[in-house]
Amino acid sequence: MKVGILGAGQLGRMLALAGYPLSARFTFLDTKPDAPAAQVGDIVIGRLDDPAKIAELANQVDVLTFDVENIPAEALREAGVEHLCRPGPLALETGQDRLLEKRCFESRDIPVAPYRAIDSLDDLHAAIGELGLPGVLKKRRLGYDGRGQRFIHDKGEAAEAFEYLGSGDLILEAFVPFEREVSMIGARRPNGDTRLYPLSQNRHHQGILRVSRAPATPAELERQAGDYVTRLLEHFDYVGVLAVEFFVRDGKLLANEMAPRVHNSGHWTTEGCVTSQFENHVRAVLDLPLGETDALGEAAMVNIIGEMPPTSELLAIPGLHLHDYGKGPRPKRKLGHATLVARDAERLAGPLERLLDLAWPEHKDN
Amino acid sequence: MKVGILGAGQLGRMLALAGYPLSARFTFLDTKPDAPAAQVGDIVIGRLDDPAKIAELANQVDVLTFDVENIPAEALREAGVEHLCRPGPLALETGQDRLLEKRCFESRDIPVAPYRAIDSLDDLHAAIGELGLPGVLKKRRLGYDGRGQRFIHDKGEAAEAFEYLGSGDLILEAFVPFEREVSMIGARRPNGDTRLYPLSQNRHHQGILRVSRAPATPAELERQAGDYVTRLLEHFDYVGVLAVEFFVRDGKLLANEMAPRVHNSGHWTTEGCVTSQFENHVRAVLDLPLGETDALGEAAMVNIIGEMPPTSELLAIPGLHLHDYGKGPRPKRKLGHATLVARDAERLAGPLERLLDLAWPEHKDN
Repeated sequence: MKVGILGAGQLGRMLALAGYPLSARFTFLDTKPDAPAAQVGDIVIGRLDDPAKIAELANQVDVLTFDVENIPAEALREAGVEHLCRPGPLALETGQDRLLEKRCFESRDIPVAPYRAIDSLDDLHAAIGELGLPGVLKKRRLGYDGRGQRFIHDKGEAAEAFEYLGSGDLILEAFVPFEREVSMIGARRPNGDTRLYPLSQNRHHQGILRVSRAPATPAELERQAGDYVTRLLEHFDYVGVLAVEFFVRDGKLLANEMAPRVHNSGHWTTEGCVTSQFENHVRAVLDLPLGETDALGEAAMVNIIGEMPPTSELLAIPGLHLHDYGKGPRPKRKLGHATLVARDAERLAGPLERLLDLAWPEHKDN
Repeated sequence: MKVGILGAGQLGRMLALAGYPLSARFTFLDTKPDAPAAQVGDIVIGRLDDPAKIAELANQVDVLTFDVENIPAEALREAGVEHLCRPGPLALETGQDRLLEKRCFESRDIPVAPYRAIDSLDDLHAAIGELGLPGVLKKRRLGYDGRGQRFIHDKGEAAEAFEYLGSGDLILEAFVPFEREVSMIGARRPNGDTRLYPLSQNRHHQGILRVSRAPATPAELERQAGDYVTRLLEHFDYVGVLAVEFFVRDGKLLANEMAPRVHNSGHWTTEGCVTSQFENHVRAVLDLPLGETDALGEAAMVNIIGEMPPTSELLAIPGLHLHDYGKGPRPKRKLGHATLVARDAERLAGPLERLLDLAWPEHKDN
């Protein structure tokens, strides 16, 4: 079976590496001939919003899926390939728009932080009156890794934040003084069979994920997250892997956002679970039985951002698994990640400290 | 770093899949543009014994290694690439020749079954007189998976067996009524750092490996095998992964043969050990720190030979990991393998029985 993937970043690369053993073949669409996934598969060179290029890719494969979620659904419709897309365009469009996303969560009785749609400065002032401050003003679309958002501490900052974010198609979210951030990944195949991964606890810095630890507790929180993820999978008649991020406040979950694809907070599953999120995404889109998602131990995933520490120093850490995405260095760029899995948290602590010192030297200050 | 691999079979394919996360790049030399490894890497089309093609590959990479061991060392010398080869030509030449191999084992005080070099029918008759029967007459070179050998039960079969195997460059081995077959894999990097894998117990049928189980006991046998493998690694100043197969007779090891490459009896290490044989081979040839080789549980690997059972039935077995090599069906051809890892042998039994029923329906009769 041939899988076409829109986007040839690290997610597509890891999908291909997980899918080859199932004898799947992979072709990517991307503008860059040496993108991370293009290094390990075939590539069609072109823009992700070009219907002609999407159609060209579709002609070579049995099914289409995504390395990035910001593919315009119009382009997929125009290319006439919606029926090949797994997940389908509805999940894609919902994940692209913070407002649709919140409304979708609410429609499934999944709690979210208070928010208002903002299309004018008047809207913003009114929303601040209703929700109070602090709050976070965000673009509805195309924000990621902390980009496209502004923190508002007091009313005087409102106009400048509104201006900065481009004046319209925004959303104001009440700031949630959360205790922690967690996420859950679910996989679903066309017949409805569903697998949920253990809950992951995530640590962001400057809007970028730095560390995930799993399985996260307590069991009740994991059960609740699993219930919410399952509702979304059913709602979309979803095929593939879906990730949902939550804030934990007063021990309860508030859904923050979803990603209709494999997710950075699930990278630990490659070594930390019986079947990785990447393999289960491939299994799902090819309509194959899903694999077990049980955790194999205590896992930690640390992102490598901006600059790659010397490979030989990373690999000298006992039990370390390196995933270098084959990219050049650049500030804030995700270049790779490393995973550690141990029988218990105590055994994980030493190697994790060494890994953090190498991959995120400032981790103690943040 | 760029790795050139001579041969683009399933071993090369799995080396590449294990090496990409370390950001290694792979180019293969093979005659078949759609060979298993060519599906996941770049390829130079050419014969493995063609010095010009070997040189062409060498020009594109930093280091050379092997998917098959039957590369003529003369071709490597003629291509002027010996200094790039890991492992080096000496290990390669020894592994290619059953006589050199036995002599090498003996020179390291590693016990072997009694044998004689056979270059004439007179040699064979004399050897039968000395060693007794039954015995196995084998080609010194180019035998694999049970090919190139003939069992001799009584003297009357000697002439026909000698004729059949091409009259010369043979070896007669006394048949060892062994209790079981085991193998051990070791990895060594240029500075001498060495890692040994747990002992594997192997079940062959008609000369082809069908099942490996690991870790095999007792500990004393594993210690002894590790000692022998270490002697060979040091002898060759070896770089990469080396596999040694042994017979167990009266609880003692007799070395049968070695393979200067990743080995089928180590395929279980992909899911069954912290670091797979494939990743450690790549780490070794790139002179990177070797990874831990601890077992993660009780593992079983079953080869899929001749015909691939339906993927959906294989993947429905809980915890199963499939490795489909992307080859077409053909009798006796290794098309893939599947691995199961469980906390203990009891938990392994049920899924393993299902796997054997699918992948080797005749397993109960053999």
